[in-house]
Amino acid sequence: MKDYEVEVKVPCDDLEAVGRLAESLGADDRGERTQEDIYFSHPCKDFGQSDEALRLRYSDGRWRITYKGPKVDQLTKTREEIEMDIDPGIENVLLKLGFRRNMVIRKNRRILLLDNVELSLDRVEGLGDFVELEYKGGSVERGKSEILDMMQKLGLKGSERRSYLELLLESQGI
Amino acid sequence: MKDYEVEVKVPCDDLEAVGRLAESLGADDRGERTQEDIYFSHPCKDFGQSDEALRLRYSDGRWRITYKGPKVDQLTKTREEIEMDIDPGIENVLLKLGFRRNMVIRKNRRILLLDNVELSLDRVEGLGDFVELEYKGGSVERGKSEILDMMQKLGLKGSERRSYLELLLESQGI
Repeated sequence: MKDYEVEVKVPCDDLEAVGRLAESLGADDRGERTQEDIYFSHPCKDFGQSDEALRLRYSDGRWRITYKGPKVDQLTKTREEIEMDIDPGIENVLLKLGFRRNMVIRKNRRILLLDNVELSLDRVEGLGDFVELEYKGGSVERGKSEILDMMQKLGLKGSERRSYLELLLESQGI
Repeated sequence: MKDYEVEVKVPCDDLEAVGRLAESLGADDRGERTQEDIYFSHPCKDFGQSDEALRLRYSDGRWRITYKGPKVDQLTKTREEIEMDIDPGIENVLLKLGFRRNMVIRKNRRILLLDNVELSLDRVEGLGDFVELEYKGGSVERGKSEILDMMQKLGLKGSERRSYLELLLESQGI
């Protein structure tokens, strides 16, 4: 479980080039995996309006549940995050409580660790390619500046604040 | 995780006598423990009206989450039940989603197993003493008749269909 996630997402034309550049700067390769994310709608609250999310993720052979709170600033995707391992049977409990499957997102993710920043090179089914940069150190303020420095080093520009969930919902006109 | 719980609860004046009688009939003593049950209210549904419950239980050194569906008949407490081990951090997720702590119930429970019936001799803080009989075999119909037989053998009369949660809420005039 962690408190705040400091993260920026950038659309990317050439994931391989970013990966090579990160490796040349000394990044540690944490491997590739397929992730399946199940997002739920709330029984009586519009998560789109409240900017929250509830997710079940299958990755690396285990299931985790994640609550994501509203984003706290305009530039980054920094938000409260509560996450833990979970029995996948929890989905039946959520359905009984009135939560509904809103969207399933599948992606291939390659993870690299460079300094205190985790780089996720994501190929998202139906959406395209993105790099997510997440600060793995302690301080939120310091994380923001380290992530912006890292983006410069890797030639990454722009910032997509919308989540994959929001992007997929928009691409489907929902 | 199990599907249906076949269970009867009976108010009891003398738990020790029932325990001795069950042992004389060959019951297997499964020990005594203190249980703490946290019941939650739903963000937009009255669980009292819908006859459902969501519970976090601490017992025997671990936490479990349980969803209980509406009771399916008038005589027993038979109801759908979905239960699994859980990280207690899930409470923070539930609170973020709008669930609220409704009641905490503490009890001392001694468990005996006799034939296919699990007997819980319960001393409930603020409520008194009860015996719960739960069928541990397969069939729901068969479970009901085995439980009624067992009640006769143990001299247990009456049936309290209200849950400890309902009884406590009523005793507090809620």
